[in-house]
Amino acid sequence: MTELTLTPTEIMEQANRALAAANEAKFMTNNLWLLISTVLVFVMHLGFAALEAGFVQRKNVVNILFKNSMIISIGLLTYYLIGFNLMYPGSNPGGFFAFSGFGLTPPENGMTAAYGNYTYWSDFIFQGMFAATCCTIVSGAVAERIKLFPFLLFCIFFVTIAYPITGFWKWGAGWLDARGFYDFAGSTLVHSVGGWGALAGIILLGPRKGKYTAKGIKPIPGHSMPLAAVGVFLLWFGWFGFNGGSVLSADPASVSKVFVTTSLAAAAGGLGAFVTSLAVFKSYDLSMTLNGILGGLVGITASADGVAVTSAILIGFIAGVIIPLSVTFFDKIKLDDPVGATSVHLVCGIWGTLAVAIFGNYGEGVGTIADQLVGILAIGAFSFSFAFLFFLLLKITIGIRVSSLEETIGLDIAEHHQSAYS
Amino acid sequence: MTELTLTPTEIMEQANRALAAANEAKFMTNNLWLLISTVLVFVMHLGFAALEAGFVQRKNVVNILFKNSMIISIGLLTYYLIGFNLMYPGSNPGGFFAFSGFGLTPPENGMTAAYGNYTYWSDFIFQGMFAATCCTIVSGAVAERIKLFPFLLFCIFFVTIAYPITGFWKWGAGWLDARGFYDFAGSTLVHSVGGWGALAGIILLGPRKGKYTAKGIKPIPGHSMPLAAVGVFLLWFGWFGFNGGSVLSADPASVSKVFVTTSLAAAAGGLGAFVTSLAVFKSYDLSMTLNGILGGLVGITASADGVAVTSAILIGFIAGVIIPLSVTFFDKIKLDDPVGATSVHLVCGIWGTLAVAIFGNYGEGVGTIADQLVGILAIGAFSFSFAFLFFLLLKITIGIRVSSLEETIGLDIAEHHQSAYS
Amino acid sequence: MTELTLTPTEIMEQANRALAAANEAKFMTNNLWLLISTVLVFVMHLGFAALEAGFVQRKNVVNILFKNSMIISIGLLTYYLIGFNLMYPGSNPGGFFAFSGFGLTPPENGMTAAYGNYTYWSDFIFQGMFAATCCTIVSGAVAERIKLFPFLLFCIFFVTIAYPITGFWKWGAGWLDARGFYDFAGSTLVHSVGGWGALAGIILLGPRKGKYTAKGIKPIPGHSMPLAAVGVFLLWFGWFGFNGGSVLSADPASVSKVFVTTSLAAAAGGLGAFVTSLAVFKSYDLSMTLNGILGGLVGITASADGVAVTSAILIGFIAGVIIPLSVTFFDKIKLDDPVGATSVHLVCGIWGTLAVAIFGNYGEGVGTIADQLVGILAIGAFSFSFAFLFFLLLKITIGIRVSSLEETIGLDIAEHHQSAYS
Repeated sequence: MTELTLTPTEIMEQANRALAAANEAKFMTNNLWLLISTVLVFVMHLGFAALEAGFVQRKNVVNILFKNSMIISIGLLTYYLIGFNLMYPGSNPGGFFAFSGFGLTPPENGMTAAYGNYTYWSDFIFQGMFAATCCTIVSGAVAERIKLFPFLLFCIFFVTIAYPITGFWKWGAGWLDARGFYDFAGSTLVHSVGGWGALAGIILLGPRKGKYTAKGIKPIPGHSMPLAAVGVFLLWFGWFGFNGGSVLSADPASVSKVFVTTSLAAAAGGLGAFVTSLAVFKSYDLSMTLNGILGGLVGITASADGVAVTSAILIGFIAGVIIPLSVTFFDKIKLDDPVGATSVHLVCGIWGTLAVAIFGNYGEGVGTIADQLVGILAIGAFSFSFAFLFFLLLKITIGIRVSSLEETIGLDIAEHHQSAYS
Repeated sequence: MTELTLTPTEIMEQANRALAAANEAKFMTNNLWLLISTVLVFVMHLGFAALEAGFVQRKNVVNILFKNSMIISIGLLTYYLIGFNLMYPGSNPGGFFAFSGFGLTPPENGMTAAYGNYTYWSDFIFQGMFAATCCTIVSGAVAERIKLFPFLLFCIFFVTIAYPITGFWKWGAGWLDARGFYDFAGSTLVHSVGGWGALAGIILLGPRKGKYTAKGIKPIPGHSMPLAAVGVFLLWFGWFGFNGGSVLSADPASVSKVFVTTSLAAAAGGLGAFVTSLAVFKSYDLSMTLNGILGGLVGITASADGVAVTSAILIGFIAGVIIPLSVTFFDKIKLDDPVGATSVHLVCGIWGTLAVAIFGNYGEGVGTIADQLVGILAIGAFSFSFAFLFFLLLKITIGIRVSSLEETIGLDIAEHHQSAYS
Repeated sequence: MTELTLTPTEIMEQANRALAAANEAKFMTNNLWLLISTVLVFVMHLGFAALEAGFVQRKNVVNILFKNSMIISIGLLTYYLIGFNLMYPGSNPGGFFAFSGFGLTPPENGMTAAYGNYTYWSDFIFQGMFAATCCTIVSGAVAERIKLFPFLLFCIFFVTIAYPITGFWKWGAGWLDARGFYDFAGSTLVHSVGGWGALAGIILLGPRKGKYTAKGIKPIPGHSMPLAAVGVFLLWFGWFGFNGGSVLSADPASVSKVFVTTSLAAAAGGLGAFVTSLAVFKSYDLSMTLNGILGGLVGITASADGVAVTSAILIGFIAGVIIPLSVTFFDKIKLDDPVGATSVHLVCGIWGTLAVAIFGNYGEGVGTIADQLVGILAIGAFSFSFAFLFFLLLKITIGIRVSSLEETIGLDIAEHHQSAYS
């Protein structure tokens, strides 16, 4: 082969072009994974809709489906308008509150300043899909007796204001982040926030008619177990994006590890709830097992990126054990939650956040038990207070509960003049 | 470090290898996104099946499921045999018709000549998934009274001949493409084409028995709202691939922007239909809201890659407003469409195609209002005529409508000797 | 432009950096595809759950959903504990058995030694999703009369011991691999293994009460065709990952070709079953058509990477033709399989494995008819014997069949004290 007559500059330019192209290729793959994760998290809205529809009575199915369709619709629009810029204002690091204005303001090159692994648009749409889930959690707990209009009002404010503010505290680099609090994909920031909203709602609403009687607790079984099971499987499906996408890149080591911890925690959650139900209730309880899987998923969400596989299994298993106990407990104190959302998202969300301190390994000053407790309490206090006061305001003004007659005939006919089946 | 004793040629070869590897990596990611989009578009067939099954009466469910299972099966096979080479013949640019022969003839290297972002095989299977959707749209509109065998015959010819011919006009670089007509992912080329087929079908079939009576319009409610809602969510899910994949690469800026415009238009469509239903019918109407989401998606499909986010929201919102008005209109003129497919796919498809001219920014001579009208009219005239004549031919030969008795007992028993539920 | 004053070493280092970055980018994309395939294969568990739930009677739905929830949960955990290291021990090449110890032992760098296209974690979780499917196949066949506890025991041992051992023979580089046996994604290794387990189970269990009477065969129709159809579409959806992911890289040529062969075989399977049902039973049979699609998918699984497209269509079509004939045959010999799992997974699995020899092109000494027969027989003998003996042991100890009364009232009430619908 004859020697090329290339100058060093020409060769270096070719090497530079190659490196730039390789970095572009990485950027493409990283960004693509965030987009695919967005699609997966989107499916969680269907998962919640199916799960909740399955767990309510036949007469309240249209209502649940309507609520969940509107939550994702309104949630995305308000997150676009306000929420995103409240959660990721790009200013006031270590602070309590910041807002960078209405609507989207993409930088010239469309990339995020912070990471460089995805575009501004990908960042927004991924975070937007997350945001609306917190109201979907509330939706199930308050089902079968809440009035539609005040519920939608609550959602708008909860998703647009409350969720992004506490989200900013950690993921927007606010004070909890500076304090060392750790929550990988949102055991607290998403699930407990939704759980606190649910708790406030069911306290103020009261239980469904006939649930807690003088003769004891009357179970009100869900109208379709297949629908509920489809919902749980779809939620697990979506969780691969919820946790896997929260790596915020397609880094092979991290994402694949997160897939393993997430899956095994879910599996262990199912097993834990199965074993506990068998021991406590002497029955193979499908609802508990399904919620156990979800409990395991919520539990691992705070630490899926930073625990050993054996720890992930233990975290999931304990979450699964918690589920039947927690469901029983809430029934004992007469807080009526038709789908078990408070047990799954609030209780297991708290457990998962504490598990960061017990099993996680995030370096000095990050995720200590004190850090985690501060985060749990601060976000809990804010979210619960916000939800409680907002629901209370609605209660004393336009009312939040349907009439006794409407509850008896069902919200589908009462609110929608439509039946789910015919 | 000691100096290497490398010749310039050796170094340049290493730089060349690196650049080639980087380009291979990009090709892999681009191709992978088209394949994943294929999977997502595939799910739309399930979405349509579920939506249509949910919106029909209990006695016609097996029939709808059977039709949708056969449409995807037959559609893929005939697109393989004929359609793909009719739509993308790779010849006669600016023309009306071309055909490059039966079956697949991959180039030696398996790459497309035109783009270089994906393989020949990926191109075929992505386009094949698109093709069958146009008959799935018809399927819902003509449900509950069409005979199975003529319907399948219609599908074979519509998917294999009609759809690819008008597809060629634009996406195959035919005369409409040369004319400046723009339709990003198929508001007209896919959705309106299906909608025109649906319109022809319902005109020739006539309404279902008992739908339009002397006493007014009798609503015939769908038998399962959960199934319909699952269908709509799955369609939205699939649309990430329908629109996102139509970028035909994993280009981060384009795909992520398309995700944002698509999602916000869907959300705004749901909101638009909700608000309009509340204003016009004074009810929280689930069916309308679900169809509003679909209307928003159809509306944004022509311009998802080239409008501002605020425009996308407006396009989706207007599509949502259109839905209840259009559904009411079709009922007024006694064109009976059990699932609202003509409103969703035809009317919103036209709206979305016009929106290109109003909100889009595709450079001079592309997507003007005149260009768009020519495309809408030309494709509409061809698709409607083809469908009308073909259905008419079937009507006067083997008949297209089941007997009155069969309609009363339902197509499941009449055509399949099987019930959907037992 | 002025000349740079770079030494050859400096330039070469830049070129090396570029090449390393390009290879990293490829690794990211390859690994990402395996992870996404994992997600898709996960959905197959939902697909099976929905399909089986749809095909059983209303009174046995909770039971099926419970079993399928526990199979994925337990299956992943035992595969983590034992199965993975039994199937891919990384030792004893060409052998019959090896085991590399309990739990996961990732290499220092987290990469697989063998391929270099994905991480150790991705490998485990992808294979883990595969593993549990073999019991999901059994679950449907033995439905409506098996006792839950012995079934779960069976699953644990079948997934943890039997499946990985025969898996090792081929995919773990054991004796069948050395012998030239070829099975791309598991027509035999996964589907027939499940099918043999199903066959053993239904032989020992006997048919459901009232199925085979003196007056002939009484059809026991499934309780929900929509659920079954949703299941089949989701299985097809998941199969893009099952076959596509089995390429074990995102290699554009291979994965896209596999998408085409897989899709067209599925389509041809649906068509084959449709045509055959129409010819033999004179009916448009939805169950047969759905199972025909699955048969086509199972049939192409062994050779999706190495047959011509026309061959793929033929393989799928023949599988589709097989389905109604095989279902009829099993009913004739009074082997009662409520969902047709033996026909779909066992018979079409064998057909697909033979098709490798007929249509495949894998080079000399690979996939000859003799090789394939040895594999089919060896794996069949082992899997069937294992399952038969294990079920027999359970039958003569704790019993495997519910009481006649329990069967009549249904397993949902008998085993779970819960109804699927209320």
